[in-house]
Amino acid sequence: MKIALAQINYHIGNFEKNTASIIQAIQNAKTQRCELIVFAELAVCGYPPRDFLEFTDFIEQCIASVNKIAVECVGIAAIVGFPSINSDEKGKNLFNSAAFLSEGKIQSLHHKSLLPNYDVFDEYRYFEPNKNSNIINFKGYKIALTICEDLWNIGEEQLYPYSPMDDLIAQHPDFMVNIAASPFNYQQAECRKTVLIKNVEKYKIPLLYVNHVGAQTELIFDGGSLAINTNGDIVTEMNYFEEDFSIINLNDLQLPANNSITITKLNKIELIHNALVLGIKDYFGKLGFTKAILGLSGGIDSAVTLVLSAKALGNENVKAVLLPSHFSSQHSIDDAIKLAENLKVPYELIPIDEAYKSYENTLSSYFEGLPFDVTEENLQARIRAVILMAFTNKFGYVLLNTSNKSEAAVGYGTLYGDMCGGLAVIGDLYKTEVYELAHFINKNAEIIPNNSIIKPPSAELRPDQKDSDSLPDYGILDQILYHYIEQRKGPRELIAMGFDGIIVKKILKLVNTNEYKRHQTPPILRISPKAFGMGRRMPIVGKYLA
Amino acid sequence: MKIALAQINYHIGNFEKNTASIIQAIQNAKTQRCELIVFAELAVCGYPPRDFLEFTDFIEQCIASVNKIAVECVGIAAIVGFPSINSDEKGKNLFNSAAFLSEGKIQSLHHKSLLPNYDVFDEYRYFEPNKNSNIINFKGYKIALTICEDLWNIGEEQLYPYSPMDDLIAQHPDFMVNIAASPFNYQQAECRKTVLIKNVEKYKIPLLYVNHVGAQTELIFDGGSLAINTNGDIVTEMNYFEEDFSIINLNDLQLPANNSITITKLNKIELIHNALVLGIKDYFGKLGFTKAILGLSGGIDSAVTLVLSAKALGNENVKAVLLPSHFSSQHSIDDAIKLAENLKVPYELIPIDEAYKSYENTLSSYFEGLPFDVTEENLQARIRAVILMAFTNKFGYVLLNTSNKSEAAVGYGTLYGDMCGGLAVIGDLYKTEVYELAHFINKNAEIIPNNSIIKPPSAELRPDQKDSDSLPDYGILDQILYHYIEQRKGPRELIAMGFDGIIVKKILKLVNTNEYKRHQTPPILRISPKAFGMGRRMPIVGKYLA
Repeated sequence: MKIALAQINYHIGNFEKNTASIIQAIQNAKTQRCELIVFAELAVCGYPPRDFLEFTDFIEQCIASVNKIAVECVGIAAIVGFPSINSDEKGKNLFNSAAFLSEGKIQSLHHKSLLPNYDVFDEYRYFEPNKNSNIINFKGYKIALTICEDLWNIGEEQLYPYSPMDDLIAQHPDFMVNIAASPFNYQQAECRKTVLIKNVEKYKIPLLYVNHVGAQTELIFDGGSLAINTNGDIVTEMNYFEEDFSIINLNDLQLPANNSITITKLNKIELIHNALVLGIKDYFGKLGFTKAILGLSGGIDSAVTLVLSAKALGNENVKAVLLPSHFSSQHSIDDAIKLAENLKVPYELIPIDEAYKSYENTLSSYFEGLPFDVTEENLQARIRAVILMAFTNKFGYVLLNTSNKSEAAVGYGTLYGDMCGGLAVIGDLYKTEVYELAHFINKNAEIIPNNSIIKPPSAELRPDQKDSDSLPDYGILDQILYHYIEQRKGPRELIAMGFDGIIVKKILKLVNTNEYKRHQTPPILRISPKAFGMGRRMPIVGKYLA
Repeated sequence: MKIALAQINYHIGNFEKNTASIIQAIQNAKTQRCELIVFAELAVCGYPPRDFLEFTDFIEQCIASVNKIAVECVGIAAIVGFPSINSDEKGKNLFNSAAFLSEGKIQSLHHKSLLPNYDVFDEYRYFEPNKNSNIINFKGYKIALTICEDLWNIGEEQLYPYSPMDDLIAQHPDFMVNIAASPFNYQQAECRKTVLIKNVEKYKIPLLYVNHVGAQTELIFDGGSLAINTNGDIVTEMNYFEEDFSIINLNDLQLPANNSITITKLNKIELIHNALVLGIKDYFGKLGFTKAILGLSGGIDSAVTLVLSAKALGNENVKAVLLPSHFSSQHSIDDAIKLAENLKVPYELIPIDEAYKSYENTLSSYFEGLPFDVTEENLQARIRAVILMAFTNKFGYVLLNTSNKSEAAVGYGTLYGDMCGGLAVIGDLYKTEVYELAHFINKNAEIIPNNSIIKPPSAELRPDQKDSDSLPDYGILDQILYHYIEQRKGPRELIAMGFDGIIVKKILKLVNTNEYKRHQTPPILRISPKAFGMGRRMPIVGKYLA
């Protein structure tokens, strides 16, 4: 039996486009004489639909899409994910389901049993967990159909009391199909392959796995759909960060593979690079915007953001604006101009002195006799934001935010100033990772001026300011942050690891007391296992470590 | 048996303060010869602790608090909520538990079975649901102990497949105890009493119910703890919006009540008023701030916000700033000054013309020949924000946001302008509700100048501008918004209700395409069953109704 795997870039709530893509893939599979085609989890509505799921109207459109798709399933069967209605009087209203479509109609529904409800996932908010799992009988084959998380309760430290495949395997299926919506982080592709192979090793039947690709605001889906044979060899690994379509011959999955694909350690920074470019591209494309603007300081963060956005949108669609104050150094201006020229990105140089002076005049009688402090620093950052936002309003740009994760963590940024933007491009990269990404970008040529990379980082908001005046060295800071944010280590654990107690307490307090700032930041493209945003939910008014 | 109910204003993660309050209440109860004292759900850490629960260090501090409290339980028993560790290898790491403390130690743990995971609740993110419920035997009484949601699966449309009291009642308990964290909305107190009485009517034993009081960022807990006798009469209803301590004699709950408290229809606007005052007070108090600042326009929204903040913080602790542009009317300035004088609130008048002109000069060569548009409107709002934020930085104020729910819904506000602030005070009130609140405030005297209430609302950002130039009348707009946001009605349902199709589609599109703005707004004090913020999670890049 020939089976097609369709890895598609869906758009949340865009039923017309999603349905058309699905039907197109079905036609394609039919042309190539496939008997079955597999789509991803919640394919018809895109993932995650979030609280759209609470609207009856939205669910009706999902069901209408499935019915439209079913009509196309003549001479071919399809498996497609959608939210279905729980008709039981008790429990939540919906299931996260896969429809098995054949002979022009829905033949059976199969619901998700294990509902992820951690980090960025909220599935128990909407869905009732499935209790009874049934095999699909199709053309003499028995198919064990599961949905994403259903296969992840394997190995040690199991998050759920049971594993649905344990029930399904008792019905002697011939192969497994798993439809998924598994968002990217720099460890995820490796982790995913390991988990799926574990399933094959445990249940001793082949596995077909279909994932989403494309970005939905902060979540980036990397694709990488898979076919794994009975041996646990990866026979097909579909493209990363782009749509793909593969045809598997089921017989090939029963045999030892001639050319199995080994799990290679992927380059973390290259993955991040590709993910961010896709993240920018889809944010603009799916919202219907084409042009970005950003403030270019001559520092490393805005430099990397500019390179990525030029790659995603085209250099002619990105506008860089240099906004020097009287504290800006000439080398920063030079470095910024050099980068814009290297990239052939249009730029403007707009000094903020006149606006700054006007505020000084306006505020002088209220601030008389008080020293220059963070007020005047923030003022510069906020004037820049006002000018950039004026450009977005006048010309239809989207402002890109250039903050990194280290400064977002400790609150080293100005709310309504440099923390503005429609999308935070490198907001999930620690400063040390931003440097790694800059080196990666420059691996063949000096695109980002070397001076932007080697000079000591500075906000240039007061004379001779350096980040290191108020923060520990980024090498130390980022390690503490990583262990606190990604690894959820508390102060005692961090000190036991060898970090200085005073620094640890200072940093953790900064992180927790700056939650109010992060609450108001743009969505951040997520590339780590624990990003600021929807996957990290913290009290603002709290006293823990604060 | 005499039982004390302790209704306490906890502070999330403030173990020292929470433990001290709990121990103080235990001493008080002992002095008054109570044999049992009941505290709220997750009392030791405050509610909701959110992702602090993912830190082992945080859980250890919770457990240490319970152990400290247990030592005090000699000659008295206590029921206190805390997160406990699930020692099973499978399932989530934690339970949402109640400890039964007696004779100086933890005698037994009782876990929550039904985990709310809708609207503002995320409990399945952290907790494993309980499966086995056991009765507490104490001094010859059998106590059926449940936690909040455990009693809410009653009546029609049950969200969960089973109700834990159905198991517990089979063990013949003498009375029920329910410890809760039930946040306020203007319907909640009535709804809560109805649900609890239903439980008494079903299980035919008395009920003691202890809730939180106090605000935790956006969530306001209204207290109103209860004792209900076997008859279903409310025998004790504890104070709303403040700490309280009551002693119940168990014998009194077996008899028909002499003076049962009837469920009266509470005044919605008075409830909202009291909730918002508490919300402001606790936001400042728990964060350690004392002084607020806000922009006072002469319009209704900033007027109501100023009155509420002056009540919460004291008139001397609130600074009003009038920031007129050349489009501001003299009557707006007059109305604003009159209000500040009525409230004896200090105010400043700071025209924004000079700053506005400086931006005009800075941007003139880029915007040459282009007409005045939303850019210049937003510019005025953003200049105001920059000035207000300069005051917060220089003097340690917190900026209060004055946006209402109607404008937040349709995006009628300037991001990084009037959408700024540390806390949105009236952000969960539709414009029509803001008017009702203004009338309530003025019921005995004209505190808010009548002119601010009766004049047509205007942002005054261009000549002769009125809100009604671009929006339908608020009477219509708010109804459509209410049915879309609170009631989750889709376009076809709204049109079937009689609303104009073109207006409905325009409004719903505005709501959905402005999600990106609401993503970056301050936390909003929640007073309705569906507020913008943590309880409404929408895709930004989505195509549904957009």
